[in-house]
Amino acid sequence: MKIESLETPALLLDLSRLDRNLGRMREKLKRQGVALRPHVKTAKSVDVVRRAGEPGACGITVSTLKEAEQFFAAGYRDILYAVGIAPNKLHHVAALRSKGCELTIVLDSVEAARAIADQSRVLGAVFPALIEIDSDGHRAGVKPGDARLIDIGRTLEKNLRGVMTHAGGSYDCKSVDEIRAMAERERAAVVRCAGELTRAGLACDVVSVGSSPTATYGESFTGVTEVRAGVYMFFDLFMAGLSVCGVDDIALSVLTSVIGHQPEKGWIITDAGWMALSRDRGTSGQKIDQGYGVVCDTGGAPIDDLIVVAANQEHGIVAHRDGGALDMTRYPVGMLLRILPNHACATAAQHAGYHVIGSRADIEAVWPRFSGW
Amino acid sequence: MKIESLETPALLLDLSRLDRNLGRMREKLKRQGVALRPHVKTAKSVDVVRRAGEPGACGITVSTLKEAEQFFAAGYRDILYAVGIAPNKLHHVAALRSKGCELTIVLDSVEAARAIADQSRVLGAVFPALIEIDSDGHRAGVKPGDARLIDIGRTLEKNLRGVMTHAGGSYDCKSVDEIRAMAERERAAVVRCAGELTRAGLACDVVSVGSSPTATYGESFTGVTEVRAGVYMFFDLFMAGLSVCGVDDIALSVLTSVIGHQPEKGWIITDAGWMALSRDRGTSGQKIDQGYGVVCDTGGAPIDDLIVVAANQEHGIVAHRDGGALDMTRYPVGMLLRILPNHACATAAQHAGYHVIGSRADIEAVWPRFSGW
Repeated sequence: MKIESLETPALLLDLSRLDRNLGRMREKLKRQGVALRPHVKTAKSVDVVRRAGEPGACGITVSTLKEAEQFFAAGYRDILYAVGIAPNKLHHVAALRSKGCELTIVLDSVEAARAIADQSRVLGAVFPALIEIDSDGHRAGVKPGDARLIDIGRTLEKNLRGVMTHAGGSYDCKSVDEIRAMAERERAAVVRCAGELTRAGLACDVVSVGSSPTATYGESFTGVTEVRAGVYMFFDLFMAGLSVCGVDDIALSVLTSVIGHQPEKGWIITDAGWMALSRDRGTSGQKIDQGYGVVCDTGGAPIDDLIVVAANQEHGIVAHRDGGALDMTRYPVGMLLRILPNHACATAAQHAGYHVIGSRADIEAVWPRFSGW
Repeated sequence: MKIESLETPALLLDLSRLDRNLGRMREKLKRQGVALRPHVKTAKSVDVVRRAGEPGACGITVSTLKEAEQFFAAGYRDILYAVGIAPNKLHHVAALRSKGCELTIVLDSVEAARAIADQSRVLGAVFPALIEIDSDGHRAGVKPGDARLIDIGRTLEKNLRGVMTHAGGSYDCKSVDEIRAMAERERAAVVRCAGELTRAGLACDVVSVGSSPTATYGESFTGVTEVRAGVYMFFDLFMAGLSVCGVDDIALSVLTSVIGHQPEKGWIITDAGWMALSRDRGTSGQKIDQGYGVVCDTGGAPIDDLIVVAANQEHGIVAHRDGGALDMTRYPVGMLLRILPNHACATAAQHAGYHVIGSRADIEAVWPRFSGW
């Protein structure tokens, strides 16, 4: 099927870019001798993740129990649910585990540890759990050196399995050197906490780190048992702005049609608004603000320094980056364009599936994706 | 079913607020003697829209052909697709019309008019069409006074039905007086264009205006045949910031659990991130920046001047509006909170359905909603 036969807007996935991104990360971490536990929150598609690692050969990371359900049904058993557990989800976790899903949960407080230990006793079930470590002050977790680490470990009783951290702060780095330093900080924080648990006589088999930037640039994973990453599969303009990938590594784009013009303003109006692109404006805080996305031709090459400068629900406004005049006859009504996304996780989430572009530049498959909780 | 038995995050819909919002708009426009054509793009739910107007009694507005499909299947026939038509959608429009759907389309260029007239001849079908008028310089449409109006009308041939405009600029108004003036500008623009078409001997039965702010505050609809509005059903913090509703009119909220704390920062961590709330930061440009949403108790009342100050994919960070210290024992792990959204259209789009809170504060129903194109 030709791209030209799609109704717009539609989500496109460039298969050769996807496979190249997957291969690079796989080889890089293999050379460093550490396991990769892909995060499925970006793709939410079994077809995509299978190319990152087959069930059986590979544990995965999830951000929702819906992801755990879907991937367990597809044959994945070793699953880390990497968001601090809410007590109202423990019954759901127990139900998945009782079916054979080896689901591990995450927490960062004595309160949550107590809820887990209590439910563990009530249900006669084990909830394998990792203590979240705050390696960067970015979000959640116990700070290295905080005495609560041992309290949480003790309170968890037999449910304790180890420690994990996520250096989300790497998204704010200003250079590759800063990302390398953040990766080392991430590693050091979690290895230190693992040592403290072990010295206190507590279990710590798992030492888990990860974010796409630190996974890409981390120079040592000594003491770490696994690395998590998700957005590396597709990459996006935010990651390109961080120098974690090139713009030509971005595997995801939104196909859109020109539906009108406002020539005196230099605006091309399209049918990809924020519903198709997402409201994510992550690049607005970076050196190059990409608006709601970079405009490409149907072959996927950026054209004429056009970006999406504004978006309403089902309308995109495309203009020259510097606001200059455009020759509108070059972008007639009905012309197809492709928009590279600011943030792959957010843009993909707006769509029900991927139109997969294969080697002949045709749509070779439609891979479904799911959403919700 | 009790709210407390839901797994979080979950989308809640307050039925009494919904019905109050629907009733107010219905009565207001009835008093002014103009028809209401509800826009279904916010709700994307037949169960919600049926309360705004029953099929048969009421035409609707859609922003996608998927909405047209779904509502036509539910019995709605008179449907205006209010986004400039892309030529690749004309076959889909024709297929819907051939099944009996009275679908009207929108355009603002001679190019699109030519594509419509050509397809109309090729398929032997009529595509009833409205010319979009730019009443506010906000997005799309032909400016009042632009000679292209008549060219487009002539090019459309028998497909021409009238004119429409959307005063999206009303979202940038700084006062109710400005919204009233914008409503008059919206009305005057489209009525003027309708007159020009009529004087040129062209058909103009439909004169359509609308946005929730101008529908709410418009003082005259003389010469207008219908008013479109969508977000008025649920309202949101953006509309409250515009004085189009009160915070206690907002019918939509996201239920979330406390999953941790960062006491030294005054942060409460929850399981409603941007995936549950959307990335919409519309209030950031208003007088009061509401972050990613206002935090309420389970009864729906705002508490302690808390807002969601930051959001990752599945994590929300809740803090005091002014960044002050919080007594974390008041927000224990597992506590349920409700978040009022910045933008109802964007937040609802992140969810598969509405958990409907009825008069007894229990969940009385789950109303499905759809997404995609």
